[in-house]
Amino acid sequence: MSHSDPITLPAIAPVANPVLQQQLQHKTNSKTKPPGSLGLLESLAIQLGLIQQTTSPAIIQPQVLVFAADHGLTAEGISAFPAKVTPQMVHNFLQGGAAINVFARQHQLTLQVVDAGVNADFAPHPQLIDRKISKGTQNSRHQPAMTMAECCKALHTGMALVSELPGNLLLVGEMGIGNTSAASLLLARLGNLPVADCTGRGTGLDDQGLSHKTRVLQAVLEHHSDANTPLQALAALGGLEIAMMTGALIQAASERRILLMDGFIAGVALLVAEQLAPGTRDYAVFGHGSAEPGHRQLLRLLEAEPLLQLNMRLGEGSGAALAYPLLQSACAYFNDMASFDDAGVSGAGV
Amino acid sequence: MSHSDPITLPAIAPVANPVLQQQLQHKTNSKTKPPGSLGLLESLAIQLGLIQQTTSPAIIQPQVLVFAADHGLTAEGISAFPAKVTPQMVHNFLQGGAAINVFARQHQLTLQVVDAGVNADFAPHPQLIDRKISKGTQNSRHQPAMTMAECCKALHTGMALVSELPGNLLLVGEMGIGNTSAASLLLARLGNLPVADCTGRGTGLDDQGLSHKTRVLQAVLEHHSDANTPLQALAALGGLEIAMMTGALIQAASERRILLMDGFIAGVALLVAEQLAPGTRDYAVFGHGSAEPGHRQLLRLLEAEPLLQLNMRLGEGSGAALAYPLLQSACAYFNDMASFDDAGVSGAGV
Repeated sequence: MSHSDPITLPAIAPVANPVLQQQLQHKTNSKTKPPGSLGLLESLAIQLGLIQQTTSPAIIQPQVLVFAADHGLTAEGISAFPAKVTPQMVHNFLQGGAAINVFARQHQLTLQVVDAGVNADFAPHPQLIDRKISKGTQNSRHQPAMTMAECCKALHTGMALVSELPGNLLLVGEMGIGNTSAASLLLARLGNLPVADCTGRGTGLDDQGLSHKTRVLQAVLEHHSDANTPLQALAALGGLEIAMMTGALIQAASERRILLMDGFIAGVALLVAEQLAPGTRDYAVFGHGSAEPGHRQLLRLLEAEPLLQLNMRLGEGSGAALAYPLLQSACAYFNDMASFDDAGVSGAGV
Repeated sequence: MSHSDPITLPAIAPVANPVLQQQLQHKTNSKTKPPGSLGLLESLAIQLGLIQQTTSPAIIQPQVLVFAADHGLTAEGISAFPAKVTPQMVHNFLQGGAAINVFARQHQLTLQVVDAGVNADFAPHPQLIDRKISKGTQNSRHQPAMTMAECCKALHTGMALVSELPGNLLLVGEMGIGNTSAASLLLARLGNLPVADCTGRGTGLDDQGLSHKTRVLQAVLEHHSDANTPLQALAALGGLEIAMMTGALIQAASERRILLMDGFIAGVALLVAEQLAPGTRDYAVFGHGSAEPGHRQLLRLLEAEPLLQLNMRLGEGSGAALAYPLLQSACAYFNDMASFDDAGVSGAGV
């Protein structure tokens, strides 16, 4: 972060701990199975232990926050779905009918919806957290998506929200027609990548729509060629839900919570978070690899290997929620499996 | 199956049903999400609907059977672990300390252990089903692993076991030191593949061990060059747990149960089942892709795409059990998500 950026962020403690890592490795090797035979589940268990600073990791009161906001850039025709779907989907979340509702119920995840900046007024609802900054971003084709004040308010709001949450695992999801465009813009700028490599069909553009979207995004990047720090880029190119997710992820990492990551848009919030508050990424478990092509670039930048590869591209936190039982499995085998000694089972070559 | 094979197997009804498939596709497209955005979960839901002949698939009383047996071929030094680990792990299963116990508890899967041919005597236990055919196979380096009578008895026993089980989903797992060798032999013979492409490190052989194992398996194949029908190959090269799993899978498919597949060894039982009773494979959902290299060959032969790729190689049904919540998720979204009409959400381009 440059010195001129008007925001104070918490420190992120390093996850690395060679002594604990060795204890965790020893524990997984002692279980009644060939060493390493649980594959990624073993490295996952070790990561959870390092995050929680324990040899007995456990997940308590997992929380899902779905951040919703609208995007002024939709005026440029960059989405297959109309902008009015954002508030419609917020209603659907509150009625329990969306994919993330179904998966959260399946896995007993507490779900709340955060109105970060939807272009509609909602009646109060027990699952709705009203933190509307504005009724959507400005059109970044012609002006910054957010003022710096709005952007910092969104970051701080995300941080404050998480600081009040119980539990030790955070799953952030999002809803916002147009937000794959904002995510592609941020990835291109902060990852220093060609915009075409960061841009996909979103909710379902055809070839012509994709090529139009790519041209619009290129023009937006040129218009904001001076927005080069993470915070400047977030304000100029991002979205209110992306900024709020970024703050939420930073706060959660500063409290040593597990970050269970969804796909492309939430992942870009993590990229911004990592650049603003280095070390945040090490608290992240990558739930799934999205079909949105920018996600591959992002995972490469973050040196991340996702747990699931189901060719999904829905958002809402849905891919992360599907991966959640694997985190429970990692804790369960690590804590509940017998050791060779416990069970009187012989080791290799004995 | 050749006319001389002394066994009668049930007919497998085709899964394909174009009218129902269209209804299922329509139902998934009506859900409040971009069409196709749930990726493999959508094709999974459609497959489950086709298997169950319904537009509202549901899983009832899922059953895990772990088949255990010993292998005479272990005398040739083809495993990193000693043969005595097979009965030790049976005790571990019965004490609830193995990986499959942990994952079955996590997902409320009913688990029973079948002694198909372990070289030990066990005290009665409520979770142990004693169907011991013999105390392990003969050494296939020098003689057939099983007599044809033993092989057919194992197949029939597997069929009878499943016919008495409740529920509509079967997960078969296995334990048997030496059984990656038996599986590699069957894959090489029935898939007409070079044995080196079918052979891996099993529970953890080093390079020298792997190369010795490959030479032994090549010699076994040459010794039984006349064992060419699926049943002859199963008897000469297979294992008691593999034969019993094969019977279990065929019976389960004949009753339209979902077959939730584990990795390499259970997968080879499915290959044998498909060759003995064509159509069985279409009832299978592939839980995970194993790190054992033969599994890639097998998945290619069966034109199968696994749900998980976690680089696991444990067996016991563990990879399938980890994939189980994705099947629940497929049913849950299909039955419980709102449609665009229900939720008043606009479609693409509206």
